[in-house]
Amino acid sequence: MEDVGVAGQQIVTAAVLVIGDEILSGRTADRNINYIAAHLTQVGIRLTEVRVVADDEAAIVTAVNELRARYTYLFTTGGIGPTHDDITADSIAKALGVHIGLDPRALELLHAYFEVRGVDATPARLRMARIPHGAMLIRNAISVAPGFMIENVIVLAGVPDVMQVMLDDVTPRLVTGEKMQTATIKLPRPEGDLADLFAAHQETFPDVAMGSYPSFTEGRVSTQLVLRSTNLERLAIARDSLETKLRASGLL
Amino acid sequence: MEDVGVAGQQIVTAAVLVIGDEILSGRTADRNINYIAAHLTQVGIRLTEVRVVADDEAAIVTAVNELRARYTYLFTTGGIGPTHDDITADSIAKALGVHIGLDPRALELLHAYFEVRGVDATPARLRMARIPHGAMLIRNAISVAPGFMIENVIVLAGVPDVMQVMLDDVTPRLVTGEKMQTATIKLPRPEGDLADLFAAHQETFPDVAMGSYPSFTEGRVSTQLVLRSTNLERLAIARDSLETKLRASGLL
Repeated sequence: MEDVGVAGQQIVTAAVLVIGDEILSGRTADRNINYIAAHLTQVGIRLTEVRVVADDEAAIVTAVNELRARYTYLFTTGGIGPTHDDITADSIAKALGVHIGLDPRALELLHAYFEVRGVDATPARLRMARIPHGAMLIRNAISVAPGFMIENVIVLAGVPDVMQVMLDDVTPRLVTGEKMQTATIKLPRPEGDLADLFAAHQETFPDVAMGSYPSFTEGRVSTQLVLRSTNLERLAIARDSLETKLRASGLL
Repeated sequence: MEDVGVAGQQIVTAAVLVIGDEILSGRTADRNINYIAAHLTQVGIRLTEVRVVADDEAAIVTAVNELRARYTYLFTTGGIGPTHDDITADSIAKALGVHIGLDPRALELLHAYFEVRGVDATPARLRMARIPHGAMLIRNAISVAPGFMIENVIVLAGVPDVMQVMLDDVTPRLVTGEKMQTATIKLPRPEGDLADLFAAHQETFPDVAMGSYPSFTEGRVSTQLVLRSTNLERLAIARDSLETKLRASGLL
């Protein structure tokens, strides 16, 4: 994590690990990847890799250890509920080589919540208080059972609403880096019309990342040219120069 | 690939590799993972892992080589258009250690398509005919530029409509295995109410995979219990037995 330092000055990276058989079987469409990606971009953390694995301890442990070593932060979603297929907390403890047990802070939260609602504190429900030793809890303002952060691994719920409040809770505790800024030019033309001009423009501005995204909506072809840089000044120069070239070629 | 044999008798696995900066930045929400997952489940191929990486050659090569070695098939989406950021075909060739160049079959398709539409065959557009040597082409019934399959790697477009017609074209050429069958029981209750009963039921039927999926819609909590097996008879017995237990406990 040598690249983490003063906020706003460094490149801070992240991976997301989605844990869940239901995503891989196609039963459920993931709704967390895009939300987390947009959120991290906004706060200045660069999402660099995403993986989806099954509710399988060996698969989770392998992915966690590869990704936490490679990126500043690893966010996981899913597998922290009360049922037997919720094995994320235990798998994280195993990956990190730390003990896991019923956490007194989490137990207190759950008991208070159950008491108010007249719900029995069954062994299954109390499994949601299993937290690896040494973890910080992440607040769940919706259904109380907490997420947690241990070392650089951030463990969030899979239910989108709950994941989102947990992400809001943990974000202020994270180191963030330079924010990626973007400029977009939309053209009512296919990519092929402008690809040569655009490739030459990328060569002129190697420090600005440039991507082209076609879309076909209601039978109409259009292309969005997206320029990305952490340097707003360079971004504006590259965008203005591209617009000038597109106009000169009759493409804009 | 020893586990691939007579159709319907073996376990056939797959990974999906989504290639695209726009997914990682949050600019675009992926719409292909869920579609491919459901399609593969339906035809009897078990999706076991998904990764998303940037438009970065080193990241693509590493992921391709890890995933193609580990699973029966690897499907990639994205990065096969005409612009400079479309580097999938070249990265696949590099990962597999094969040559890449303009493919005569793909050139013929593109030239015919351009001629009818009065479009210039620019160098950028012809980049879409760059195909690794030895690949089979995959038909693109929408915009002609083909996908391809080389060894066990299947390279598809990122635009969902185009990806879907390519997937339909390639599917009959794939070995498929035992189909996973599912049975679902929906209960208007939180997971915690039934987690102990459900865990005990899983222990009684270790050969049937069981998962629990909570949802919160319009303030109402419900849980779906999903049972999965390739053996329809065992699945029916496990489902009936679970329903009996849930009724006896007043949960159904």
